[in-house]
Amino acid sequence: MLHSSTVHESLTAVFQVREFDGRSQLGVLLWQRALDPQQGTWSLPGGKLREDEDLTTSARRQLAEKVDVKELAHLEQLAVFSDPHRVPGHRRIASTFLGLVPLTTDPRLPSDTRWHPVSALPRMSFDHGVVVEYARTRLAAKLSYTNIAFGLAPSEFAMSTLREIYCAALGYDVDTTNLQRVLGRRKVLTPTGTTSSPGRSGGRPAALYRFTDSRIRVTDEFAALRPPS
Amino acid sequence: MLHSSTVHESLTAVFQVREFDGRSQLGVLLWQRALDPQQGTWSLPGGKLREDEDLTTSARRQLAEKVDVKELAHLEQLAVFSDPHRVPGHRRIASTFLGLVPLTTDPRLPSDTRWHPVSALPRMSFDHGVVVEYARTRLAAKLSYTNIAFGLAPSEFAMSTLREIYCAALGYDVDTTNLQRVLGRRKVLTPTGTTSSPGRSGGRPAALYRFTDSRIRVTDEFAALRPPS
Repeated sequence: MLHSSTVHESLTAVFQVREFDGRSQLGVLLWQRALDPQQGTWSLPGGKLREDEDLTTSARRQLAEKVDVKELAHLEQLAVFSDPHRVPGHRRIASTFLGLVPLTTDPRLPSDTRWHPVSALPRMSFDHGVVVEYARTRLAAKLSYTNIAFGLAPSEFAMSTLREIYCAALGYDVDTTNLQRVLGRRKVLTPTGTTSSPGRSGGRPAALYRFTDSRIRVTDEFAALRPPS
Repeated sequence: MLHSSTVHESLTAVFQVREFDGRSQLGVLLWQRALDPQQGTWSLPGGKLREDEDLTTSARRQLAEKVDVKELAHLEQLAVFSDPHRVPGHRRIASTFLGLVPLTTDPRLPSDTRWHPVSALPRMSFDHGVVVEYARTRLAAKLSYTNIAFGLAPSEFAMSTLREIYCAALGYDVDTTNLQRVLGRRKVLTPTGTTSSPGRSGGRPAALYRFTDSRIRVTDEFAALRPPS
Protein backbone atom coordinates (compact mmCIF):
# COMPACT_ATOMS: atom_id res chain seq x y z
CA MET A 1 0.00 0.00 0.00
CA LEU A 2 1.09 3.56 -0.59
CA HIS A 3 1.69 5.80 2.35
CA SER A 4 -1.43 7.92 2.67
CA SER A 5 0.52 11.15 2.15
CA THR A 6 1.73 10.18 -1.33
CA VAL A 7 1.00 12.99 -3.79
CA HIS A 8 0.44 12.63 -7.52
CA GLU A 9 1.64 15.63 -9.52
CA SER A 10 1.94 16.70 -13.14
CA LEU A 11 5.09 18.33 -14.54
CA THR A 12 5.24 19.78 -18.05
CA ALA A 13 8.26 20.58 -20.17
CA VAL A 14 6.95 23.47 -22.32
CA PHE A 15 9.21 24.04 -25.32
CA GLN A 16 9.44 26.90 -27.76
CA VAL A 17 12.08 27.78 -30.36
CA ARG A 18 13.37 31.23 -29.31
CA GLU A 19 16.35 33.46 -29.78
CA PHE A 20 19.01 33.09 -27.08
CA ASP A 21 22.38 34.83 -27.43
CA GLY A 22 21.52 35.86 -30.97
CA ARG A 23 20.59 32.43 -32.35
CA SER A 24 17.50 30.22 -32.48
CA GLN A 25 17.52 27.50 -29.83
CA LEU A 26 15.04 25.26 -28.10
CA GLY A 27 13.84 26.93 -24.91
CA VAL A 28 12.02 25.50 -21.91
CA LEU A 29 9.73 27.37 -19.52
CA LEU A 30 10.95 27.33 -15.90
CA TRP A 31 9.99 29.11 -12.68
CA GLN A 32 12.31 29.85 -9.79
CA ARG A 33 11.45 28.57 -6.32
CA ALA A 34 11.14 31.43 -3.84
CA LEU A 35 10.95 29.07 -0.86
CA ASP A 36 12.54 25.87 0.37
CA PRO A 37 12.87 23.05 -0.43
CA GLN A 38 15.64 23.94 -2.86
CA GLN A 39 15.03 27.70 -2.80
CA GLY A 40 16.47 29.43 -5.85
CA THR A 41 16.48 26.35 -8.10
CA TRP A 42 14.38 26.24 -11.29
CA SER A 43 11.30 24.03 -11.69
CA LEU A 44 8.97 22.83 -14.41
CA PRO A 45 5.39 24.13 -14.16
CA GLY A 46 3.07 21.62 -12.52
CA GLY A 47 1.52 20.66 -9.23
CA LYS A 48 -0.75 18.38 -7.31
CA LEU A 49 -3.50 16.40 -8.96
CA ARG A 50 -6.92 17.31 -7.54
CA GLU A 51 -9.55 14.79 -6.58
CA ASP A 52 -11.97 15.83 -9.34
CA GLU A 53 -9.66 16.04 -12.37
CA ASP A 54 -7.63 13.69 -14.55
CA LEU A 55 -3.94 14.29 -15.22
CA THR A 56 -4.28 16.10 -18.56
CA THR A 57 -6.87 18.48 -17.08
CA SER A 58 -4.55 19.01 -14.13
CA ALA A 59 -1.52 19.71 -16.32
CA ARG A 60 -3.50 22.27 -18.38
CA ARG A 61 -4.82 23.92 -15.22
CA GLN A 62 -1.33 24.22 -13.73
CA LEU A 63 0.05 25.59 -16.99
CA ALA A 64 -2.68 28.22 -17.17
CA GLU A 65 -1.01 29.85 -14.18
CA LYS A 66 2.32 30.12 -16.02
CA VAL A 67 1.39 30.49 -19.69
CA ASP A 68 -1.94 30.97 -21.42
CA VAL A 69 -3.25 27.51 -22.32
CA LYS A 70 -4.57 28.81 -25.65
CA GLU A 71 -0.96 29.31 -26.69
CA LEU A 72 -0.16 25.59 -26.33
CA ALA A 73 -0.34 23.96 -29.77
CA HIS A 74 0.31 20.44 -28.46
CA LEU A 75 0.34 18.60 -25.13
CA GLU A 76 1.14 14.91 -24.68
CA GLN A 77 1.93 12.55 -21.83
CA LEU A 78 5.48 11.38 -21.33
CA ALA A 79 6.65 8.87 -18.71
CA VAL A 80 5.74 8.67 -15.04
CA PHE A 81 8.65 9.41 -12.72
CA SER A 82 7.99 7.23 -9.67
CA ASP A 83 11.28 6.61 -7.89
CA PRO A 84 10.27 6.52 -4.19
CA HIS A 85 13.10 8.96 -3.37
CA ARG A 86 12.82 11.38 -6.29
CA VAL A 87 11.98 14.23 -3.90
CA PRO A 88 12.80 14.56 -0.19
CA GLY A 89 10.00 14.05 2.35
CA HIS A 90 6.62 12.66 1.37
CA ARG A 91 6.54 10.64 -1.81
CA ARG A 92 5.52 12.46 -5.02
CA ILE A 93 4.72 10.51 -8.19
CA ALA A 94 5.14 12.75 -11.24
CA SER A 95 3.28 12.26 -14.51
CA THR A 96 5.26 14.25 -17.04
CA PHE A 97 4.07 16.02 -20.18
CA LEU A 98 5.55 17.61 -23.28
CA GLY A 99 3.98 20.94 -24.31
CA LEU A 100 4.76 22.95 -27.46
CA VAL A 101 4.32 26.67 -28.13
CA PRO A 102 4.54 28.02 -31.73
CA LEU A 103 7.43 30.22 -32.85
CA THR A 104 5.50 33.42 -33.27
CA THR A 105 3.63 33.64 -29.98
CA ASP A 106 5.17 35.48 -27.05
CA PRO A 107 3.25 34.48 -23.95
CA ARG A 108 3.15 36.89 -21.00
CA LEU A 109 4.96 35.30 -18.10
CA PRO A 110 4.70 35.79 -14.34
CA SER A 111 7.71 37.45 -12.73
CA ASP A 112 9.17 34.20 -11.34
CA THR A 113 9.07 32.49 -14.77
CA ARG A 114 11.50 32.61 -17.69
CA TRP A 115 12.56 30.79 -20.87
CA HIS A 116 15.94 29.04 -20.66
CA PRO A 117 17.87 27.38 -23.50
CA VAL A 118 17.67 23.61 -23.06
CA SER A 119 21.37 23.42 -23.90
CA ALA A 120 22.30 25.53 -20.85
CA LEU A 121 19.87 24.81 -18.03
CA PRO A 122 20.20 26.68 -14.74
CA ARG A 123 20.42 24.81 -11.42
CA MET A 124 17.33 22.59 -11.61
CA SER A 125 15.04 21.40 -8.79
CA PHE A 126 14.92 17.69 -7.86
CA ASP A 127 14.86 15.52 -11.02
CA HIS A 128 13.39 18.25 -13.25
CA GLY A 129 16.56 18.40 -15.36
CA VAL A 130 16.15 14.71 -16.16
CA VAL A 131 12.54 15.35 -17.20
CA VAL A 132 13.65 18.14 -19.57
CA GLU A 133 16.24 15.85 -21.19
CA TYR A 134 13.64 13.05 -21.48
CA ALA A 135 11.18 15.47 -23.13
CA ARG A 136 13.82 16.81 -25.52
CA THR A 137 14.82 13.30 -26.58
CA ARG A 138 11.17 12.38 -27.20
CA LEU A 139 10.62 15.55 -29.23
CA ALA A 140 13.72 14.86 -31.36
CA ALA A 141 12.58 11.28 -32.04
CA LYS A 142 9.05 12.37 -32.95
CA LEU A 143 10.35 15.04 -35.33
CA SER A 144 11.58 12.14 -37.48
CA TYR A 145 8.48 9.96 -37.67
CA THR A 146 5.53 12.28 -36.95
CA ASN A 147 4.30 15.75 -37.92
CA ILE A 148 4.92 17.07 -34.36
CA ALA A 149 6.76 20.16 -35.68
CA PHE A 150 3.31 21.69 -36.25
CA GLY A 151 3.40 22.50 -32.53
CA LEU A 152 6.56 24.61 -32.89
CA ALA A 153 5.80 26.28 -36.24
CA PRO A 154 3.72 29.37 -37.01
CA SER A 155 0.50 28.74 -38.96
CA GLU A 156 2.25 29.67 -42.26
CA PHE A 157 5.98 29.65 -42.86
CA ALA A 158 8.74 29.63 -45.46
CA MET A 159 10.92 26.48 -45.64
CA SER A 160 13.84 28.46 -44.25
CA THR A 161 11.82 29.14 -41.08
CA LEU A 162 10.89 25.48 -40.72
CA ARG A 163 14.52 24.50 -41.16
CA GLU A 164 15.45 26.94 -38.37
CA ILE A 165 12.89 25.23 -36.11
CA TYR A 166 14.20 21.73 -36.91
CA CYS A 167 17.81 22.78 -36.37
CA ALA A 168 16.99 24.37 -33.03
CA ALA A 169 14.89 21.45 -31.78
CA LEU A 170 17.36 18.79 -32.95
CA GLY A 171 20.47 20.71 -31.93
CA TYR A 172 22.27 20.10 -35.22
CA ASP A 173 22.18 21.32 -38.78
CA VAL A 174 19.53 20.15 -41.26
CA ASP A 175 19.54 20.79 -45.00
CA THR A 176 16.51 22.78 -46.29
CA THR A 177 16.29 20.88 -49.59
CA ASN A 178 16.31 17.47 -47.90
CA LEU A 179 13.78 18.59 -45.30
CA GLN A 180 11.41 19.86 -48.00
CA ARG A 181 11.81 16.66 -50.04
CA VAL A 182 11.14 14.33 -47.09
CA LEU A 183 8.19 16.29 -45.68
CA GLY A 184 6.75 16.81 -49.16
CA ARG A 185 6.89 13.11 -50.02
CA ARG A 186 5.05 12.31 -46.78
CA LYS A 187 2.42 14.99 -47.43
CA VAL A 188 3.19 16.59 -44.09
CA LEU A 189 3.22 20.07 -45.65
CA THR A 190 0.71 21.80 -47.93
CA PRO A 191 1.70 24.87 -50.01
CA THR A 192 -0.57 27.81 -49.20
CA GLY A 193 -0.22 29.10 -52.77
CA THR A 194 1.08 32.42 -51.49
CA THR A 195 4.54 33.84 -50.95
CA SER A 196 6.13 35.91 -48.23
CA SER A 197 6.80 39.57 -48.89
CA PRO A 198 10.52 40.03 -49.51
CA GLY A 199 12.41 40.59 -46.28
CA ARG A 200 14.76 43.44 -45.54
CA SER A 201 17.53 41.47 -47.21
CA GLY A 202 15.53 41.94 -50.43
CA GLY A 203 15.70 38.32 -51.66
CA ARG A 204 13.12 36.55 -53.79
CA PRO A 205 9.72 36.11 -52.11
CA ALA A 206 9.59 32.61 -50.59
CA ALA A 207 6.75 30.10 -51.06
CA LEU A 208 4.70 29.62 -47.90
CA TYR A 209 3.57 26.30 -46.42
CA ARG A 210 1.37 25.08 -43.62
CA PHE A 211 1.15 21.74 -41.83
CA THR A 212 -1.53 19.56 -43.45
CA ASP A 213 -2.74 18.36 -40.03
CA SER A 214 -2.82 20.17 -36.72
CA ARG A 215 -3.05 16.94 -34.74
CA ILE A 216 -0.20 14.55 -34.32
CA ARG A 217 0.03 11.57 -36.65
CA VAL A 218 2.68 9.03 -37.62
CA THR A 219 3.78 10.12 -41.08
CA ASP A 220 5.90 7.19 -41.98
CA GLU A 221 4.01 3.96 -41.77
CA PHE A 222 5.85 1.51 -44.00
CA ALA A 223 4.21 1.60 -47.39
CA ALA A 224 4.33 -2.19 -47.19
CA LEU A 225 2.55 -2.26 -43.85
CA ARG A 226 -0.35 0.09 -44.50
CA PRO A 227 -3.79 -1.35 -43.95
CA PRO A 228 -5.69 -2.09 -47.16
CA SER A 229 -7.59 1.09 -48.09
CA MET B 1 -5.09 17.33 -2.67
CA LEU B 2 -5.82 13.73 -3.38
CA HIS B 3 -8.07 11.85 -1.06
CA SER B 4 -5.78 9.88 1.23
CA SER B 5 -7.16 6.55 0.04
CA THR B 6 -6.15 7.06 -3.60
CA VAL B 7 -4.25 4.04 -4.88
CA HIS B 8 -1.67 3.99 -7.63
CA GLU B 9 -1.63 0.74 -9.61
CA SER B 10 0.12 -0.73 -12.63
CA LEU B 11 -1.72 -2.61 -15.39
CA THR B 12 0.10 -4.46 -18.17
CA ALA B 13 -1.22 -5.61 -21.53
CA VAL B 14 0.98 -8.66 -22.21
CA PHE B 15 0.79 -9.64 -25.88
CA GLN B 16 1.89 -12.78 -27.69
CA VAL B 17 1.15 -14.04 -31.20
CA ARG B 18 -0.62 -17.37 -30.69
CA GLU B 19 -2.89 -19.75 -32.51
CA PHE B 20 -6.60 -19.17 -31.85
CA ASP B 21 -9.23 -21.07 -33.86
CA GLY B 22 -6.57 -22.46 -36.14
CA ARG B 23 -4.91 -19.18 -37.12
CA SER B 24 -2.21 -16.89 -35.72
CA GLN B 25 -3.62 -13.90 -33.88
CA LEU B 26 -2.49 -11.37 -31.32
CA GLY B 27 -3.35 -12.63 -27.85
CA VAL B 28 -3.52 -10.81 -24.52
CA LEU B 29 -3.04 -12.31 -21.06
CA LEU B 30 -6.10 -11.92 -18.79
CA TRP B 31 -7.20 -13.29 -15.42
CA GLN B 32 -10.78 -13.77 -14.30
CA ARG B 33 -11.98 -12.08 -11.14
CA ALA B 34 -13.25 -14.63 -8.61
CA LEU B 35 -14.69 -11.94 -6.35
CA ASP B 36 -16.57 -8.71 -6.57
CA PRO B 37 -16.28 -5.98 -7.73
CA GLN B 38 -17.23 -7.25 -11.20
CA GLN B 39 -16.89 -10.95 -10.38
CA GLY B 40 -16.42 -13.05 -13.50
CA THR B 41 -15.04 -10.25 -15.69
CA TRP B 42 -11.50 -10.43 -17.10
CA SER B 43 -8.65 -8.19 -15.93
CA LEU B 44 -5.15 -7.21 -16.97
CA PRO B 45 -2.41 -8.35 -14.59
CA GLY B 46 -1.33 -5.59 -12.21
CA GLY B 47 -1.89 -4.22 -8.77
CA LYS B 48 -1.01 -1.67 -6.18
CA LEU B 49 2.26 0.21 -6.16
CA ARG B 50 4.24 -0.41 -2.97
CA GLU B 51 5.94 2.30 -0.98
CA ASP B 52 9.46 1.03 -1.73
CA GLU B 53 9.27 0.42 -5.50
CA ASP B 54 8.92 2.42 -8.69
CA LEU B 55 6.23 1.63 -11.27
CA THR B 56 8.34 -0.54 -13.59
CA THR B 57 9.55 -2.64 -10.66
CA SER B 58 5.96 -2.94 -9.49
CA ALA B 59 4.68 -3.99 -12.93
CA ARG B 60 7.38 -6.67 -13.20
CA ARG B 61 6.62 -7.91 -9.69
CA GLN B 62 2.89 -8.16 -10.42
CA LEU B 63 3.57 -9.95 -13.72
CA ALA B 64 5.81 -12.49 -12.02
CA GLU B 65 2.68 -13.80 -10.33
CA LYS B 66 0.97 -14.40 -13.69
CA VAL B 67 3.79 -15.15 -16.13
CA ASP B 68 7.50 -15.71 -15.61
CA VAL B 69 9.21 -12.33 -15.98
CA LYS B 70 12.16 -13.95 -17.79
CA GLU B 71 9.74 -14.67 -20.65
CA LEU B 72 9.03 -10.97 -21.23
CA ALA B 73 11.18 -9.74 -24.11
CA HIS B 74 10.03 -6.12 -23.80
CA LEU B 75 8.18 -3.92 -21.31
CA GLU B 76 7.39 -0.23 -21.81
CA GLN B 77 5.22 2.42 -20.18
CA LEU B 78 2.04 3.50 -21.92
CA ALA B 79 -0.31 6.26 -20.72
CA VAL B 80 -1.63 6.90 -17.23
CA PHE B 81 -5.38 6.32 -16.90
CA SER B 82 -6.47 8.85 -14.30
CA ASP B 83 -10.18 9.55 -14.76
CA PRO B 84 -11.43 10.09 -11.18
CA HIS B 85 -14.31 7.67 -11.84
CA ARG B 86 -12.50 4.93 -13.79
CA VAL B 87 -13.27 2.40 -11.05
CA PRO B 88 -16.06 2.48 -8.46
CA GLY B 89 -15.19 3.35 -4.87
CA HIS B 90 -11.80 4.75 -3.89
CA ARG B 91 -9.86 6.39 -6.66
CA ARG B 92 -7.25 4.27 -8.52
CA ILE B 93 -4.74 5.88 -10.86
CA ALA B 94 -3.44 3.29 -13.32
CA SER B 95 -0.04 3.47 -15.01
CA THR B 96 -0.30 1.14 -17.97
CA PHE B 97 2.40 -0.92 -19.66
CA LEU B 98 2.88 -2.91 -22.86
CA GLY B 99 4.64 -6.28 -22.44
CA LEU B 100 5.72 -8.65 -25.23
CA VAL B 101 6.32 -12.41 -25.11
CA PRO B 102 8.14 -14.15 -28.02
CA LEU B 103 6.31 -16.56 -30.31
CA THR B 104 8.02 -19.76 -29.21
CA THR B 105 7.66 -19.52 -25.42
CA ASP B 106 4.68 -21.06 -23.72
CA PRO B 107 4.52 -19.66 -20.20
CA ARG B 108 2.85 -21.72 -17.49
CA LEU B 109 -0.21 -19.86 -16.31
CA PRO B 110 -2.13 -19.93 -13.04
CA SER B 111 -5.59 -21.48 -13.25
CA ASP B 112 -7.46 -18.16 -13.31
CA THR B 113 -5.37 -16.85 -16.23
CA ARG B 114 -5.72 -17.39 -19.96
CA TRP B 115 -4.72 -15.97 -23.37
CA HIS B 116 -7.56 -14.34 -25.32
CA PRO B 117 -7.50 -13.07 -28.91
CA VAL B 118 -7.44 -9.26 -28.88
CA SER B 119 -10.01 -9.30 -31.67
CA ALA B 120 -12.58 -11.09 -29.46
CA LEU B 121 -12.14 -9.96 -25.87
CA PRO B 122 -14.35 -11.46 -23.16
CA ARG B 123 -16.35 -9.22 -20.80
CA MET B 124 -13.62 -6.95 -19.44
CA SER B 125 -13.28 -5.38 -15.99
CA PHE B 126 -13.58 -1.59 -15.57
CA ASP B 127 -11.66 0.21 -18.35
CA HIS B 128 -9.29 -2.68 -19.04
CA GLY B 129 -10.71 -3.19 -22.54
CA VAL B 130 -9.78 0.41 -23.38
CA VAL B 131 -6.25 -0.22 -22.10
CA VAL B 132 -5.92 -3.30 -24.36
CA GLU B 133 -7.03 -1.29 -27.39
CA TYR B 134 -4.65 1.54 -26.48
CA ALA B 135 -1.77 -0.96 -26.16
CA ARG B 136 -2.63 -2.66 -29.46
CA THR B 137 -2.73 0.68 -31.29
CA ARG B 138 0.65 1.63 -29.83
CA LEU B 139 2.15 -1.72 -30.82
CA ALA B 140 0.83 -1.39 -34.39
CA ALA B 141 2.27 2.14 -34.70
CA LYS B 142 5.65 1.07 -33.32
CA LEU B 143 5.84 -1.89 -35.70
CA SER B 144 6.14 0.68 -38.48
CA TYR B 145 8.87 2.96 -37.13
CA THR B 146 10.81 0.84 -34.62
CA ASN B 147 12.25 -2.67 -34.31
CA ILE B 148 9.68 -3.59 -31.61
CA ALA B 149 8.80 -6.87 -33.38
CA PHE B 150 11.92 -8.36 -31.72
CA GLY B 151 9.72 -8.73 -28.64
CA LEU B 152 7.25 -10.97 -30.49
CA ALA B 153 9.71 -12.99 -32.61
CA PRO B 154 11.75 -16.07 -31.70
CA SER B 155 15.52 -15.55 -31.54
CA GLU B 156 15.91 -16.90 -35.13
CA PHE B 157 13.19 -17.08 -37.75
CA ALA B 158 12.38 -17.44 -41.43
CA MET B 159 10.80 -14.42 -43.15
CA SER B 160 7.54 -16.34 -43.46
CA THR B 161 7.40 -16.58 -39.66
CA LEU B 162 8.10 -12.89 -39.23
CA ARG B 163 5.39 -12.09 -41.76
CA GLU B 164 2.95 -14.22 -39.74
CA ILE B 165 3.83 -12.17 -36.63
CA TYR B 166 3.34 -8.84 -38.42
CA CYS B 167 0.02 -9.96 -39.92
CA ALA B 168 -1.25 -11.12 -36.53
CA ALA B 169 -0.12 -8.01 -34.65
CA LEU B 170 -1.41 -5.59 -37.29
CA GLY B 171 -4.61 -7.51 -38.00
CA TYR B 172 -4.23 -7.33 -41.79
CA ASP B 173 -2.16 -8.93 -44.51
CA VAL B 174 1.46 -7.95 -45.16
CA ASP B 175 3.56 -9.00 -48.14
CA THR B 176 6.71 -11.01 -47.27
CA THR B 177 8.82 -9.47 -50.05
CA ASN B 178 7.96 -5.91 -49.06
CA LEU B 179 8.54 -6.65 -45.39
CA GLN B 180 11.96 -8.11 -46.11
CA ARG B 181 12.90 -5.20 -48.36
CA VAL B 182 11.87 -2.53 -45.82
CA LEU B 183 13.44 -4.20 -42.78
CA GLY B 184 16.57 -5.07 -44.75
CA ARG B 185 17.06 -1.49 -45.94
CA ARG B 186 16.75 -0.28 -42.37
CA LYS B 187 19.22 -2.90 -41.10
CA VAL B 188 16.62 -4.15 -38.61
CA LEU B 189 17.38 -7.78 -39.50
CA THR B 190 20.66 -9.67 -39.76
CA PRO B 191 20.93 -12.97 -41.67
CA THR B 192 22.24 -15.72 -39.40
CA GLY B 193 23.93 -17.41 -42.38
CA THR B 194 22.01 -20.62 -41.70
CA THR B 195 18.81 -22.09 -43.08
CA SER B 196 15.89 -23.88 -41.53
CA SER B 197 15.59 -27.63 -42.03
CA PRO B 198 12.86 -28.27 -44.62
CA GLY B 199 9.48 -28.54 -42.98
CA ARG B 200 7.00 -31.37 -43.39
CA SER B 201 5.75 -29.67 -46.53
CA GLY B 202 9.20 -30.43 -47.96
CA GLY B 203 9.89 -27.01 -49.51
CA ARG B 204 13.26 -25.38 -49.97
CA PRO B 205 15.12 -24.65 -46.72
CA ALA B 206 14.49 -20.99 -45.79
CA ALA B 207 17.19 -18.46 -44.82
CA LEU B 208 17.09 -17.55 -41.14
CA TYR B 209 17.29 -14.07 -39.65
CA ARG B 210 17.57 -12.47 -36.25
CA PHE B 211 16.87 -8.93 -35.03
CA THR B 212 20.05 -6.87 -35.08
CA ASP B 213 19.15 -5.25 -31.75
CA SER B 214 17.28 -6.66 -28.79
CA ARG B 215 16.47 -3.21 -27.42
CA ILE B 216 13.95 -0.90 -28.96
CA ARG B 217 15.19 1.80 -31.33
CA VAL B 218 13.64 4.10 -33.90
CA THR B 219 14.65 2.60 -37.22
CA ASP B 220 13.52 5.32 -39.50
CA GLU B 221 15.10 8.62 -38.62
CA PHE B 222 14.93 10.74 -41.75
CA ALA B 223 18.18 10.32 -43.60
CA ALA B 224 18.09 14.09 -43.94
CA LEU B 225 17.69 14.61 -40.21
CA ARG B 226 20.37 12.30 -38.81
CA PRO B 227 22.95 13.93 -36.58
CA PRO B 228 26.34 14.36 -38.23
CA SER B 229 28.33 11.15 -37.58
